[in-house]
Amino acid sequence: MQEHTLSSYDEQLAEIASDLNEMGRMAWRLTADALEALGSSDAAKAHEVIEADKPIDEMQQRIEQLAVLTIAKYQPMAVDLRVLVAAMRVANDLERVGDLAKNIAKRTIAIDAPLRSQKLMTSFRQLSKLVLSQLETVLAAYAARDGKMASEVRARDGEVDAIHTSVFRELLTYMLEDTRNIAMCTHLLFCAKNIERIGDHATNVAETLHYVLTGEMLEDDRPKADASSQAS
Amino acid sequence: MQEHTLSSYDEQLAEIASDLNEMGRMAWRLTADALEALGSSDAAKAHEVIEADKPIDEMQQRIEQLAVLTIAKYQPMAVDLRVLVAAMRVANDLERVGDLAKNIAKRTIAIDAPLRSQKLMTSFRQLSKLVLSQLETVLAAYAARDGKMASEVRARDGEVDAIHTSVFRELLTYMLEDTRNIAMCTHLLFCAKNIERIGDHATNVAETLHYVLTGEMLEDDRPKADASSQAS
Repeated sequence: MQEHTLSSYDEQLAEIASDLNEMGRMAWRLTADALEALGSSDAAKAHEVIEADKPIDEMQQRIEQLAVLTIAKYQPMAVDLRVLVAAMRVANDLERVGDLAKNIAKRTIAIDAPLRSQKLMTSFRQLSKLVLSQLETVLAAYAARDGKMASEVRARDGEVDAIHTSVFRELLTYMLEDTRNIAMCTHLLFCAKNIERIGDHATNVAETLHYVLTGEMLEDDRPKADASSQAS
Repeated sequence: MQEHTLSSYDEQLAEIASDLNEMGRMAWRLTADALEALGSSDAAKAHEVIEADKPIDEMQQRIEQLAVLTIAKYQPMAVDLRVLVAAMRVANDLERVGDLAKNIAKRTIAIDAPLRSQKLMTSFRQLSKLVLSQLETVLAAYAARDGKMASEVRARDGEVDAIHTSVFRELLTYMLEDTRNIAMCTHLLFCAKNIERIGDHATNVAETLHYVLTGEMLEDDRPKADASSQAS
């Protein structure tokens, strides 16, 4: 771990909060760009997304390092300690969001053909729009320490899962209809799954905010409507 | 964060190391059981795997809490601080391994039919065997602080990716041959991907050990042979 000159405790906290905000914006932007590249079969944009994931990884390491050094130097207790642990958790979730967006971009390049099914495109757009909104809302809730807004994000994850399951079924149908769709639809199955998982990370951020505000970890008992791993 | 009575620094470090070993054994066991359930279409075993993931999640929280409180209380520097940060990272990777094993178990229940292709079963067995060996080796390397053994795990990740890509292609062929295979093969595509990702987490543990031993983070430049997200 590199040496890092620590300024005052409050300055450290403000710097971490600001980095986390910046990282949230970067992860949201990368997701939006990946989904736009996917929707418009834009290989050039997909290549940009792949490149732009690296600064997000670096930001995670920076936040982890700052948080750990702040804990070591100032020995914060209770809520102050939770804020720092939470910063590391959120940075971890946002790093995963970046990876998932990058994977969508890689598959966009592999697909290299427009989606021919209008119905499928509409479903993908619906899923993308909801997940981007979930991510945006939870990042705003986190910055504002708004537990109510975060709970709403958590409650809506079931909706993400339901749309994902429906996209999953449509893709299966499309594969059954014409075997020439199989290779492309396989990539799209993974893209849909990645979008759904970005939604899960938004939910994780909501749960981390609950932990900051209350000191309690939420049990993983939120309504699960993603039946895609059970579908037969 | 709960209060935790801290004993001496060395005792704390020993407790964290012991928890991490235990967590490694749990995650390896869960993976082995999930892969056995998948290979033998054993729904009862798959249900056991789903249940057994919870203690792994709890162990992660426990290790994170202990590591953070130890950092706050003892303000360790240099290698001591790295050991604690690394414990949190490894616990995070092992928690993800548990989730991936659980997802394989869920899909095993959904598939509910034996794999009819001998060739496919052989490929899955080969992939499973290699990934279990990677996980076992990296956990032993981590416990023994054996950087050389860990490097070997990292070097072999390309082999995991190559087998995964080959399984991916076989599954596509199998779907093209007979559309009745599509639903089952879709689950198997995700299972294969999950196994490959368990291999990635083994590699992450190897990289975390390198960080403990040297203070340097490895760039993500290891040979990538997983062409499945590029395959068209």
